Amino acid sequence: MKIRELKAILKKKKLDFALFYSTGIEPNPNMVYFSRYYGMGALIIPKTKPPFLIAPEMEYERARKSGIKNAYKMDRKKFFESISIILRKKGIKAKNIGIDKSAFTLLAYKAFKKHFKRAKTKDLALDCLRLRETKTEEEIRIIKNAFNYGNDIIKKFIKNIDGFKTESDAAAFLEYEAKKIGLEMSFPPIVASGKNASMPHHMPKNTRLQKGFCVIDFGIKYMGYCTDMTRTIYIGKPKKKEMKIYSLLLKTQKSLAENIKIGDNCGKIYERCVKSLGKYSKYFIHGLGHGVGCQIHELPNLTLNSKDKIQKNMIFTIEPGIYIPNKFGIRIEDTLLMEKKPVLLTKVSKDLLII
Amino acid sequence: MKIRELKAILKKKKLDFALFYSTGIEPNPNMVYFSRYYGMGALIIPKTKPPFLIAPEMEYERARKSGIKNAYKMDRKKFFESISIILRKKGIKAKNIGIDKSAFTLLAYKAFKKHFKRAKTKDLALDCLRLRETKTEEEIRIIKNAFNYGNDIIKKFIKNIDGFKTESDAAAFLEYEAKKIGLEMSFPPIVASGKNASMPHHMPKNTRLQKGFCVIDFGIKYMGYCTDMTRTIYIGKPKKKEMKIYSLLLKTQKSLAENIKIGDNCGKIYERCVKSLGKYSKYFIHGLGHGVGCQIHELPNLTLNSKDKIQKNMIFTIEPGIYIPNKFGIRIEDTLLMEKKPVLLTKVSKDLLII
Repeated sequence: MKIRELKAILKKKKLDFALFYSTGIEPNPNMVYFSRYYGMGALIIPKTKPPFLIAPEMEYERARKSGIKNAYKMDRKKFFESISIILRKKGIKAKNIGIDKSAFTLLAYKAFKKHFKRAKTKDLALDCLRLRETKTEEEIRIIKNAFNYGNDIIKKFIKNIDGFKTESDAAAFLEYEAKKIGLEMSFPPIVASGKNASMPHHMPKNTRLQKGFCVIDFGIKYMGYCTDMTRTIYIGKPKKKEMKIYSLLLKTQKSLAENIKIGDNCGKIYERCVKSLGKYSKYFIHGLGHGVGCQIHELPNLTLNSKDKIQKNMIFTIEPGIYIPNKFGIRIEDTLLMEKKPVLLTKVSKDLLII
Repeated sequence: MKIRELKAILKKKKLDFALFYSTGIEPNPNMVYFSRYYGMGALIIPKTKPPFLIAPEMEYERARKSGIKNAYKMDRKKFFESISIILRKKGIKAKNIGIDKSAFTLLAYKAFKKHFKRAKTKDLALDCLRLRETKTEEEIRIIKNAFNYGNDIIKKFIKNIDGFKTESDAAAFLEYEAKKIGLEMSFPPIVASGKNASMPHHMPKNTRLQKGFCVIDFGIKYMGYCTDMTRTIYIGKPKKKEMKIYSLLLKTQKSLAENIKIGDNCGKIYERCVKSLGKYSKYFIHGLGHGVGCQIHELPNLTLNSKDKIQKNMIFTIEPGIYIPNKFGIRIEDTLLMEKKPVLLTKVSKDLLII
């Protein structure tokens, strides 16, 4: 996606090519974004010539079946040496190189400098994030499909909710429903019941679901694109005060999500949330939202003092929460697509489900 | 684990403390190893004083419930500034700092240097890997339990094998069985049938299981520790030649696994494999094995020219494979614990299962 736009940046920054790499089993998000290749190796996007992949022999077939036509084999043990040899053979200058400094480790850089001694590097991390923060028509089509899958799975989850005994059991159901039809997960699903719900990133435990609020935070990955959604349910009989706090959060979340406009300042949206939560805002201990794309956390940042602005074709979450340590936690999260108005991608009821 | 040993290294290298961090949702393996904390934040291990964690507010409760007693809150947006303030308050010098350069990005280093202007850094990446390559008694207990779970799941998988229609479906079963009892995965399971099996890192597809060899590569994570195992089955009726190649691979794998001795050179073990595979060795396109621990790929490296030596209490895989592009692929992988002799942790039959 947006290879042409990246090439324009390379020209402007006077860079010979962009280099993205992965040496391990974790795919590099920019490599995935530009090439649809999920493996080990490097993606080179020259300023003028067509992009190509360089992959170790064991990954070569996967590389050839990615979104990039040209692939070459490398010696995995001579990672950057192999890259420099191929570049020389292809007659591509390597004086000024664009890299993603947020995904380039100090150790890799040391190895890189051995074979690119006189090269100067410039950081493309933010440029890539900025390219990725507004989605293309093609991406929006894929992402809408992704949310159709995600929404169906959470609905099936809710239908089956009486059958779950433990947090792990419930979380595993979400994954199983996704994976058996070939989807991946955006992140390990969170099912946090009782006191555990007061930890926003609680990992599901193999213990009985506790009474009280239960936070379910879950996303799938379809064709490389993430979904994200949180619903809070109640196990048992909620107290009046708990109902009141949930209503406050729901009202806040709905009002924020419905009233976002193109051009809005993200820091200001966060402030609106804090104002709406009133005295409970001190228990709101994370950002209000984030962009969603190839990675689960992308731009824009809907956090305190963020200067990001809402643009057309951005996809982002609105997820206020209230966490009272060692007592309970609640969170409601939708993902929105910004057209003229915000369009809800997470079409699943937010009324408090009591079981 | 081995915090005392790390402190000895800090003294030897004249370092004031070791710093490990994670700014995203991916846990830092050394932070996990030394602290059992899986979240965002930093782990500081001073040369003399007790170790402590620094975590953003939303992760603070998780940090306090980890293996490290002391935890402090940080401002996530002022990551390294927060760390430097806490260090100053605690009166800990920050002149010489040990970091893991294999997990420290260029961007993070730039932010770090702003607040640790005069600090010198030394790399601890290899020291940590070396500490982790032989396991403690406690780790071995955990890992043996992990393999009990892993072995049970693959046996259950084999019992249910007639019911799987697609690669995704089969892979999802492996994950579901693990996750519903609160386990995690070491890596996304591989189920590669037909031609797909010729790609060692093929991602399962939502298409019918193809006839021919089918490679199943799978591991779970229990209390932070990985398991790893590959079995190859046959769907349909194998040709004589296919049976012969499988037998060659099995004979090779068994003979290598059974004959490993303390002190063996890992490069030499790899060479034995190449010799045993004979003319098929050109289709053996990856390493023979790797250490397994908090990460799925650790030391020792059983690869060409590796100088690593087999030591007592190492845990590593032996996984020869033969991959004929666009035709088929086979791999047999066990994980071994090195006691006086190698002890098989993956106690699951390797005879070719034909279905």
